[in-house]
This record gives sequence, C-alpha cells and structure tokens, in this order.
Amino acid sequence: MTAYQHGGDIHSFAQKAGCNPEEVIDLSSNINFVKPHIDVDFNRLDISAYPNYDALYEAVALRYGVETDEMELFGGGSAAIFALFGYFKGRHSGLPLRCTIYTPAYLEYKKAATVFGYEVVQINRFETMDRVPPKGSLVIFVNPATPDGMVYELPTLLEIWEKQECTVLVDESFIEFSNAPSVTLLIRTYPNLYILKSMTKYYGAAGIRIGTLISQASNITTLRTTEPLWKLSAFDTAYLCVALSDSTFPERSAVENAKSKAHLIETLKHTSQIEKIYPGHANYVLVKLKNITANALQESLLPHRIMIRDCGNFDGLDAYYARIAVKALPAMQTLREALDA
Amino acid sequence: MTAYQHGGDIHSFAQKAGCNPEEVIDLSSNINFVKPHIDVDFNRLDISAYPNYDALYEAVALRYGVETDEMELFGGGSAAIFALFGYFKGRHSGLPLRCTIYTPAYLEYKKAATVFGYEVVQINRFETMDRVPPKGSLVIFVNPATPDGMVYELPTLLEIWEKQECTVLVDESFIEFSNAPSVTLLIRTYPNLYILKSMTKYYGAAGIRIGTLISQASNITTLRTTEPLWKLSAFDTAYLCVALSDSTFPERSAVENAKSKAHLIETLKHTSQIEKIYPGHANYVLVKLKNITANALQESLLPHRIMIRDCGNFDGLDAYYARIAVKALPAMQTLREALDA
Repeated sequence: MTAYQHGGDIHSFAQKAGCNPEEVIDLSSNINFVKPHIDVDFNRLDISAYPNYDALYEAVALRYGVETDEMELFGGGSAAIFALFGYFKGRHSGLPLRCTIYTPAYLEYKKAATVFGYEVVQINRFETMDRVPPKGSLVIFVNPATPDGMVYELPTLLEIWEKQECTVLVDESFIEFSNAPSVTLLIRTYPNLYILKSMTKYYGAAGIRIGTLISQASNITTLRTTEPLWKLSAFDTAYLCVALSDSTFPERSAVENAKSKAHLIETLKHTSQIEKIYPGHANYVLVKLKNITANALQESLLPHRIMIRDCGNFDGLDAYYARIAVKALPAMQTLREALDA
Repeated sequence: MTAYQHGGDIHSFAQKAGCNPEEVIDLSSNINFVKPHIDVDFNRLDISAYPNYDALYEAVALRYGVETDEMELFGGGSAAIFALFGYFKGRHSGLPLRCTIYTPAYLEYKKAATVFGYEVVQINRFETMDRVPPKGSLVIFVNPATPDGMVYELPTLLEIWEKQECTVLVDESFIEFSNAPSVTLLIRTYPNLYILKSMTKYYGAAGIRIGTLISQASNITTLRTTEPLWKLSAFDTAYLCVALSDSTFPERSAVENAKSKAHLIETLKHTSQIEKIYPGHANYVLVKLKNITANALQESLLPHRIMIRDCGNFDGLDAYYARIAVKALPAMQTLREALDA
C-alpha cells in the first residue's frame, strides 16, 4: 500500500530517519501547508445514515462556475483517473486504445494507461512540444505541469487536439496555486474536454479523498451510469463543504505560499549543488542538480528529517532532478540550514 | 445523487413528512443500530498527509482470518461492486459477458451488470433455485439474502458453479447478523471465488465508505493493478480500525439486535395487514402484505415519521412486499403503536 516512489510516504521515511512520522519535514508531496478554517465538530457528525452529497455538489459547482450536472465527484484525484481510463476503455471496446501523455507528468497517468491496455505515446514538453498526438487518442495534459510547475496556453493546443479528434483530460489540480487561466468553461466549446481538479491538494488535506471531474453534461450523464451511488465519506464531504465556504482561504493561501516560495527560491539560488531552477507556477519547485544525484541529496537531508522528491522516475527526467515543495517558513528555514551545512 | 428507491434517503422522506432528517425513524436501510465504541478524536486526526492503510489492512485481514494480500479495500460495498464488474469486463474483452443474479437481490447488482454490458440471467431463489447458471457466467449470490434474510448452504452451490466454470461473487455484507457460516476461507479451494463484506452496515456507519473484497492472492494482485493508490478517507480508515478493535461489539450487537428483532416479529405477527413474515436471518424482515400495497403502508406511516422499504422494485417481488429494519427498541415500539393505530 505504500508508495515511496510517489512522494508523501512519510511513514517509510520516518522509519529510515529514525523519527516519528510527525517529525518529518515532508517537502516531497505538494499538499498546501495553508489550511482552510474548518469549523466542524467531526466527533458529532451523523455518520450512521447514508451520506447525502447534494450540498457538496452545489458548493463545488459554484466554486468552478459550472452546473451540478457538468461535474462528478470521485474518491480523490487518482480514483478519478483510474475510473476515467476504465470508462473510456469500456466505450471503445474493439478499437485500438491510444493515450498521449505530455511528459514529464504525474506517474499515475502512465500506470493507469498501461494497466487498462492503452498504447502510450509520450510527447516531451521540454523537447518536442510541437508534436501532434495521434488521431483519436486520449490526451493527458497537466496544467500547471508536474513536477516543474510550467503553465501552458491551452486554447491553441485545444484547437490542435480537436482537429485530431482527441478526447482530452486537462489536470488542473494545481491551478489554484498559479495565475493560469482555467479551461473549465471551455467544456461548453469542446465536447471531448474533461477537466480534473484534485481538490485535496489545494484544500490542504490528502487524507480526505475527493476529486472533481468536469465535462459537458451529456458526458457526465453517461459517465455517472458506471459510478456507484455512494463513494464519498461523510467526514470528507463535511470537510470539503466547509473548506469551500472559507472565503478568506484563497487570499491567505496565495500570500503565505508566495512568501514561502520566495524564501525557497532564494535558498536554491545559493545552493552550489543546483544547476538549474525551473521557473514554475505551483507550490513546488523542480531543480536540476549538478555533481550529486537526487537520491544522494535525499540521503544527505535524512539526518535533518527533510524529505524531497527524487524525480528520476519521471519520463523525460533523470537521476539529477529533484522536486521540492513549498511549505511553511520554519520548514523552508530548516531546509536552508540543511543545504548550507 | 439521491436514491429514494434504495432506502435510506431520509432527506427526501423528511421533506415529505415535514420534519427534520434526524426525526425520521429509518426502518428502510439496514445499518446496525448498535454502534462500536469509537475512542477517536476525529478533530485531531492528521488529515494533511497522504493516508496510510497498512494498519487497516492488517485489522481487516485478522478479522476475517485471511492474509492482507488476499483482500482489497474499496470506498464502500457499492464501489467494490462497480469496480469488480468493470474489472471483469476488462479481462474478457471480445467475449460475451454474462451475469447470473440470484434474485431478489440488492439492486446495484443488476444496475452494474447492465451498465457494463453484461447479459443478465436471473435465477429466482423462491421458485427456481435448482436452475444451473450458464457456463462461464459471473454468479452473484447474496448470503444472507436481501431483502428476505434467507441463509443458504453455499458449499453445494459452489460445486455446481465450479462445474459451470463460473466466477462467483458471494456478498456476505449481512453475515455478521446471522449464524450462517462464512465461505471466506473457501477462497483457498475455489480460485474463482470472491467474497464481499460491506463493513459499514454491520459496523453501524453508512457515512464511512469502506468495503472489503476477498479472494485468492493472485486474483487480488491482478485486481490491484487497476486500483488507485489512495481511495479511502483517513477519517474512515481511523473509524474502522477502532471499530474492529472493539472486542465487546459482536456480543452487544447480537444481544441487542435479537431483542429488537423479537419485538418487531411480535408486532408483525399481530398486524392484520401482513400475510406472511419471512423467517430471515439478518437485521431486517421481509413481509408480504395483504389488501394494502407497500406504498400505501408507507404513506400511512408517514405521519409517524417511520420510513420502511417498499420492495416493489426488486425482481421477483411485487408491490405487496415491504422490508422493515431491526432498530432500537423505542423505534420498534413506535412502529408497533403506528401499526396498531
């Protein structure tokens, strides 16, 4: 069940570092360190009855400016990804399945495409962005991208993908950390466009499992037929409803992330082992190292209980790339001291 | 998102009855009214980090006497059902898909089979139990059955199903309420046997979404490849871990359910509108009505804020069947008074 290669596995890391999981400074996963105000007594929540998701659907729809029949909720972003790959496979039985992934990208995409029997085509964003995806393929584009945080102008790409008759999934799980314009409302222009919002990253809780998929109402209606009636926890539903209603959160999140990110960039600029800092627009920073692998850097940070993300397993990157998450200032300060040491 | 036809939709019912959802006496859904002791402060749970399911897998495996690699957790029983129908479909691409459902049965089975493109064969448990399922079909058997609570001797049936080269899903979501022997350990004899445990019904919390699927390790290994890394809520994970550790719960549950059920049966015996009481072995009782439809009975109970389950939409039953859940004694007393009125 553990996933060391995905970042965020603080339990295995803590064991290796000889400390408690709570003592780990996790700069490997990109959960927002700023949290919404959650004014709920979870101990008094009615969890006996079947949960009702109406209020949550309405809050999420309002948040993204869509109708409740233009969206479907899943048990987290990665549950949505797997459901979608299975769903598209089910609808194309007999036809060859192709998936075009713009890499590097979140690893679950390649895994899902492979296990569901898609032929995977990769377009390297750093080298061959002008390549056109094969006709009719399922296009996966993460914007802002991970692990580098680059933001892309999607309308031009959407035109190309439409000409190629592609079905398109744009993963906007980190868009709230950037100033990038969302393509959410373009679902009304492009009938084959799906948008994924992982929700739990921005709203600061990987322990709650809710992700949103947005598309034209007719797509959502069909997709829902293969979904169970109940799949979200009553606890998680309550958490996200309240998180979405915190009107001060977006501003607080933006200000505190900007402060911490500036501190982190300053640290990285003065770190001799770093060859290149990627100018990303999310709550993480990709760096190219020199004379040291990400794995070796990770080992050197172990005594400081700082966990970073070795990006060697991303397609298009190698052992010299690492991703570092933006976290609260004290954590950024500890990283600065550790890298100076 | 609502599901009036499935029972348990207290929100729609409350609206109709002109009361608050908390005031509804819900005898339509089969959530255990006895609750495990939950000694967790959910407000202090770490939900920021990615959840770790290791402890829960170990607790569930221990509970059912299997190994952790002989089971997989899903976001509730109905999520497990849909995942499984999609999974089997994915493995049989090209071949005709057939699903044999022993009816009446939980409605989600027919729905899942239909949306995933299975040809559905029904064997009526009350009339044609000796029918043999078509070769190679996916057999669905719920034991104890719903909505009647009948318990079946599965070993004989398993022999027949194996001869027919069927893949078998036995849904044991209500088995803890009965004295029926589980077939869990027969996974080691039958390589095509899968057992579903919905967990949230017996452990008294439909708001937490966790269900367990048990099968041979090689089946589980393959099944897991199409499952996302994270799908369970950290809240739900904590709840179920603690619920499973309450050693006094099984005894308390058995005693209190028996008391309430005896009271309910006594009431039903003295109700003139009831033609037949089914001798079930679960925490609900199926009745056949006379001179009144379940819908009309439901309407007559509306002023008493008592919600029962109209079973008219179950295959093999008609408008004169209703299911009534076993709940705490005061609720059973209110029902008695309402039926006497």
